[in-house]
Amino acid sequence: MVFDDWWNMEKILEIALLYDFYGELLTEKQKQIFELYYNNDLSLSEIGEELGISRQAVRDQIKRTEQILQQYENKLSLVEKFLKQKQEVLHIKELIVDLETKFNLPPEMQQRIEAIREIAAEILS
Amino acid sequence: MVFDDWWNMEKILEIALLYDFYGELLTEKQKQIFELYYNNDLSLSEIGEELGISRQAVRDQIKRTEQILQQYENKLSLVEKFLKQKQEVLHIKELIVDLETKFNLPPEMQQRIEAIREIAAEILS
Repeated sequence: MVFDDWWNMEKILEIALLYDFYGELLTEKQKQIFELYYNNDLSLSEIGEELGISRQAVRDQIKRTEQILQQYENKLSLVEKFLKQKQEVLHIKELIVDLETKFNLPPEMQQRIEAIREIAAEILS
Repeated sequence: MVFDDWWNMEKILEIALLYDFYGELLTEKQKQIFELYYNNDLSLSEIGEELGISRQAVRDQIKRTEQILQQYENKLSLVEKFLKQKQEVLHIKELIVDLETKFNLPPEMQQRIEAIREIAAEILS
Protein backbone atom coordinates (compact mmCIF):
# COMPACT_ATOMS: atom_id res chain seq x y z
CA MET A 1 0.00 0.00 0.00
CA VAL A 2 1.43 3.31 -1.03
CA PHE A 3 0.87 6.70 0.57
CA ASP A 4 -0.34 8.38 -2.65
CA ASP A 5 -0.66 11.78 -1.11
CA TRP A 6 -1.23 13.61 2.15
CA TRP A 7 -4.97 13.27 2.00
CA ASN A 8 -4.55 9.54 1.76
CA MET A 9 -2.10 9.42 4.63
CA GLU A 10 -4.42 11.44 6.80
CA LYS A 11 -7.27 9.08 6.01
CA ILE A 12 -5.08 6.10 6.90
CA LEU A 13 -4.11 7.63 10.24
CA GLU A 14 -7.77 8.27 10.97
CA ILE A 15 -8.69 4.68 10.16
CA ALA A 16 -5.80 3.41 12.29
CA LEU A 17 -7.13 5.41 15.22
CA LEU A 18 -10.66 4.11 14.71
CA TYR A 19 -9.27 0.57 14.59
CA ASP A 20 -7.26 1.20 17.73
CA PHE A 21 -10.42 2.25 19.57
CA TYR A 22 -13.09 -0.04 18.14
CA GLY A 23 -11.17 -2.89 16.50
CA GLU A 24 -12.07 -5.34 19.25
CA LEU A 25 -15.72 -5.07 18.25
CA LEU A 26 -14.97 -6.55 14.81
CA THR A 27 -15.14 -10.24 13.96
CA GLU A 28 -11.91 -12.26 13.75
CA LYS A 29 -12.27 -12.42 9.95
CA GLN A 30 -12.70 -8.65 9.65
CA LYS A 31 -9.69 -8.06 11.88
CA GLN A 32 -7.57 -10.50 9.89
CA ILE A 33 -8.22 -8.87 6.52
CA PHE A 34 -7.90 -5.40 7.98
CA GLU A 35 -4.53 -6.15 9.54
CA LEU A 36 -3.16 -7.88 6.46
CA TYR A 37 -3.99 -4.75 4.48
CA TYR A 38 -3.18 -1.94 6.90
CA ASN A 39 -0.51 -3.45 9.15
CA ASN A 40 1.19 -6.02 6.92
CA ASP A 41 0.91 -3.86 3.79
CA LEU A 42 -0.31 -6.70 1.59
CA SER A 43 -2.10 -5.78 -1.66
CA LEU A 44 -5.74 -6.69 -2.27
CA SER A 45 -4.62 -9.44 -4.68
CA GLU A 46 -2.12 -10.88 -2.21
CA ILE A 47 -4.75 -11.02 0.53
CA GLY A 48 -7.20 -12.58 -1.91
CA GLU A 49 -4.69 -15.29 -2.81
CA GLU A 50 -3.88 -15.98 0.84
CA LEU A 51 -7.54 -16.33 1.81
CA GLY A 52 -8.78 -17.91 -1.42
CA ILE A 53 -11.22 -15.13 -2.23
CA SER A 54 -11.35 -12.59 -5.06
CA ARG A 55 -9.57 -9.26 -5.04
CA GLN A 56 -12.97 -7.59 -5.21
CA ALA A 57 -14.25 -9.51 -2.18
CA VAL A 58 -11.24 -8.34 -0.19
CA ARG A 59 -11.85 -4.75 -1.24
CA ASP A 60 -15.53 -5.00 -0.25
CA GLN A 61 -14.63 -6.45 3.14
CA ILE A 62 -12.17 -3.66 3.87
CA LYS A 63 -14.65 -0.96 2.83
CA ARG A 64 -17.34 -2.59 4.95
CA THR A 65 -15.02 -2.79 7.97
CA GLU A 66 -14.08 0.88 7.58
CA GLN A 67 -17.79 1.74 7.53
CA ILE A 68 -18.43 -0.29 10.70
CA LEU A 69 -15.59 1.47 12.52
CA GLN A 70 -16.89 4.83 11.35
CA GLN A 71 -20.40 3.96 12.52
CA TYR A 72 -19.11 3.22 16.02
CA GLU A 73 -17.41 6.61 16.05
CA ASN A 74 -20.57 8.32 14.76
CA LYS A 75 -22.46 6.84 17.69
CA LEU A 76 -19.88 7.17 20.46
CA SER A 77 -17.52 10.02 19.40
CA LEU A 78 -14.83 8.58 21.66
CA VAL A 79 -11.97 9.17 19.21
CA GLU A 80 -13.08 12.78 18.91
CA LYS A 81 -13.26 13.13 22.71
CA PHE A 82 -9.83 11.54 23.05
CA LEU A 83 -8.25 13.79 20.38
CA LYS A 84 -9.75 16.89 21.99
CA GLN A 85 -8.26 15.85 25.33
CA LYS A 86 -4.87 15.23 23.73
CA GLN A 87 -5.00 18.69 22.21
CA GLU A 88 -5.63 20.21 25.62
CA VAL A 89 -2.77 18.29 27.22
CA LEU A 90 -0.53 19.40 24.34
CA HIS A 91 -1.43 22.96 25.25
CA ILE A 92 -0.41 22.29 28.87
CA LYS A 93 2.91 20.95 27.62
CA GLU A 94 3.51 24.07 25.52
CA LEU A 95 2.84 26.30 28.52
CA ILE A 96 5.29 24.27 30.59
CA VAL A 97 8.00 24.53 27.93
CA ASP A 98 7.32 28.26 27.80
CA LEU A 99 7.71 28.55 31.59
CA GLU A 100 10.93 26.56 31.57
CA THR A 101 12.54 28.56 28.78
CA LYS A 102 11.43 32.07 29.76
CA PHE A 103 11.98 31.98 33.50
CA ASN A 104 14.84 31.06 35.74
CA LEU A 105 12.93 28.84 38.13
CA PRO A 106 14.12 28.04 41.64
CA PRO A 107 14.81 24.27 42.10
CA GLU A 108 11.71 23.60 44.22
CA MET A 109 9.49 25.17 41.60
CA GLN A 110 11.39 23.54 38.73
CA GLN A 111 10.80 20.16 40.35
CA ARG A 112 7.01 20.58 40.27
CA ILE A 113 7.02 22.02 36.75
CA GLU A 114 9.09 19.05 35.64
CA ALA A 115 6.59 16.67 37.27
CA ILE A 116 3.75 18.30 35.32
CA ARG A 117 5.74 18.03 32.08
CA GLU A 118 6.31 14.31 32.72
CA ILE A 119 2.63 13.65 33.40
CA ALA A 120 1.67 15.52 30.21
CA ALA A 121 4.24 13.51 28.23
CA GLU A 122 2.86 10.28 29.73
CA ILE A 123 -0.67 11.20 28.63
CA LEU A 124 0.53 12.12 25.13
CA SER A 125 2.62 8.97 24.69
CA MET B 1 -33.98 3.40 43.98
CA VAL B 2 -32.16 3.75 47.28
CA PHE B 3 -28.41 3.98 47.83
CA ASP B 4 -28.29 1.07 50.29
CA ASP B 5 -24.61 1.45 51.01
CA TRP B 6 -21.34 2.69 49.59
CA TRP B 7 -20.67 -0.42 47.59
CA ASN B 8 -24.01 0.01 45.91
CA MET B 9 -23.38 3.66 45.17
CA GLU B 10 -19.99 2.88 43.70
CA LYS B 11 -21.55 0.23 41.48
CA ILE B 12 -24.17 2.74 40.31
CA LEU B 13 -21.51 5.32 39.45
CA GLU B 14 -19.61 2.68 37.50
CA ILE B 15 -22.73 1.70 35.56
CA ALA B 16 -23.52 5.37 34.88
CA LEU B 17 -20.04 5.80 33.42
CA LEU B 18 -20.40 2.69 31.26
CA TYR B 19 -23.76 3.98 30.04
CA ASP B 20 -22.23 7.37 29.32
CA PHE B 21 -19.59 5.74 27.12
CA TYR B 22 -21.44 2.89 25.44
CA GLY B 23 -25.13 3.74 25.88
CA GLU B 24 -25.54 4.70 22.23
CA LEU B 25 -24.81 1.11 21.23
CA LEU B 26 -27.92 -0.11 23.04
CA THR B 27 -31.37 -0.49 21.44
CA GLU B 28 -34.01 2.19 22.07
CA LYS B 29 -35.91 -0.24 24.31
CA GLN B 30 -32.84 -1.00 26.40
CA LYS B 31 -32.08 2.70 26.75
CA GLN B 32 -35.66 3.47 27.75
CA ILE B 33 -35.80 0.92 30.60
CA PHE B 34 -32.29 1.78 31.72
CA GLU B 35 -33.07 5.49 31.95
CA LEU B 36 -36.39 4.98 33.71
CA TYR B 37 -34.55 2.98 36.36
CA TYR B 38 -31.27 4.83 36.74
CA ASN B 39 -32.13 8.40 35.74
CA ASN B 40 -35.80 8.70 36.63
CA ASP B 41 -35.52 6.57 39.79
CA LEU B 42 -38.61 4.50 39.02
CA SER B 43 -38.95 1.14 40.77
CA LEU B 44 -39.01 -2.15 38.85
CA SER B 45 -42.77 -2.41 39.47
CA GLU B 46 -43.43 1.12 38.28
CA ILE B 47 -41.47 0.54 35.08
CA GLY B 48 -43.30 -2.75 34.57
CA GLU B 49 -46.67 -1.03 34.91
CA GLU B 50 -45.66 1.74 32.52
CA LEU B 51 -44.47 -0.69 29.85
CA GLY B 52 -47.02 -3.42 30.48
CA ILE B 53 -44.46 -6.09 31.36
CA SER B 54 -43.73 -7.95 34.59
CA ARG B 55 -41.45 -6.68 37.34
CA GLN B 56 -39.23 -9.70 36.69
CA ALA B 57 -38.97 -8.91 32.97
CA VAL B 58 -37.85 -5.38 33.82
CA ARG B 59 -35.22 -6.73 36.22
CA ASP B 60 -33.95 -9.18 33.59
CA GLN B 61 -33.72 -6.42 30.98
CA ILE B 62 -31.73 -4.16 33.30
CA LYS B 63 -29.35 -6.97 34.26
CA ARG B 64 -28.89 -7.87 30.59
CA THR B 65 -28.20 -4.26 29.66
CA GLU B 66 -25.63 -3.94 32.45
CA GLN B 67 -23.93 -7.06 31.10
CA ILE B 68 -23.86 -5.69 27.57
CA LEU B 69 -22.29 -2.43 28.75
CA GLN B 70 -19.74 -4.38 30.80
CA GLN B 71 -18.91 -6.55 27.77
CA TYR B 72 -18.14 -3.46 25.71
CA GLU B 73 -15.80 -2.26 28.43
CA ASN B 74 -14.18 -5.71 28.69
CA LYS B 75 -13.40 -5.50 24.97
CA LEU B 76 -12.46 -1.84 24.62
CA SER B 77 -11.31 -0.67 28.10
CA LEU B 78 -12.11 2.91 27.14
CA VAL B 79 -13.64 3.84 30.51
CA GLU B 80 -10.52 2.52 32.21
CA LYS B 81 -8.30 4.50 29.83
CA PHE B 82 -10.38 7.61 30.40
CA LEU B 83 -10.31 7.26 34.22
CA LYS B 84 -6.55 6.76 34.18
CA GLN B 85 -6.16 9.93 32.13
CA LYS B 86 -8.44 11.85 34.50
CA GLN B 87 -6.31 10.67 37.42
CA GLU B 88 -3.20 12.00 35.72
CA VAL B 89 -4.79 15.37 35.00
CA LEU B 90 -5.95 15.52 38.62
CA HIS B 91 -2.33 15.08 39.61
CA ILE B 92 -1.37 18.03 37.38
CA LYS B 93 -4.05 20.11 39.08
CA GLU B 94 -2.68 19.22 42.52
CA LEU B 95 0.82 20.25 41.48
CA ILE B 96 -0.54 23.57 40.18
CA VAL B 97 -2.42 24.27 43.43
CA ASP B 98 0.77 23.39 45.29
CA LEU B 99 2.78 25.86 43.17
CA GLU B 100 0.21 28.61 43.65
CA THR B 101 0.00 28.24 47.41
CA LYS B 102 3.68 27.66 48.23
CA PHE B 103 5.31 30.25 45.98
CA ASN B 104 4.84 33.91 45.42
CA LEU B 105 4.75 33.85 41.62
CA PRO B 106 5.50 36.87 39.47
CA PRO B 107 2.44 37.90 37.36
CA GLU B 108 3.82 36.62 34.03
CA MET B 109 4.46 33.22 35.56
CA GLN B 110 1.17 33.24 37.44
CA GLN B 111 -0.64 33.86 34.19
CA ARG B 112 0.73 30.70 32.58
CA ILE B 113 0.17 28.61 35.70
CA GLU B 114 -3.40 29.85 35.78
CA ALA B 115 -3.85 28.86 32.12
CA ILE B 116 -2.65 25.33 32.90
CA ARG B 117 -5.05 25.16 35.87
CA GLU B 118 -7.93 26.18 33.62
CA ILE B 119 -7.11 23.59 30.96
CA ALA B 120 -6.86 20.89 33.65
CA ALA B 121 -10.22 21.98 35.08
CA GLU B 122 -11.72 21.89 31.58
CA ILE B 123 -10.52 18.32 31.07
CA LEU B 124 -11.82 17.26 34.48
CA SER B 125 -15.24 18.90 34.01
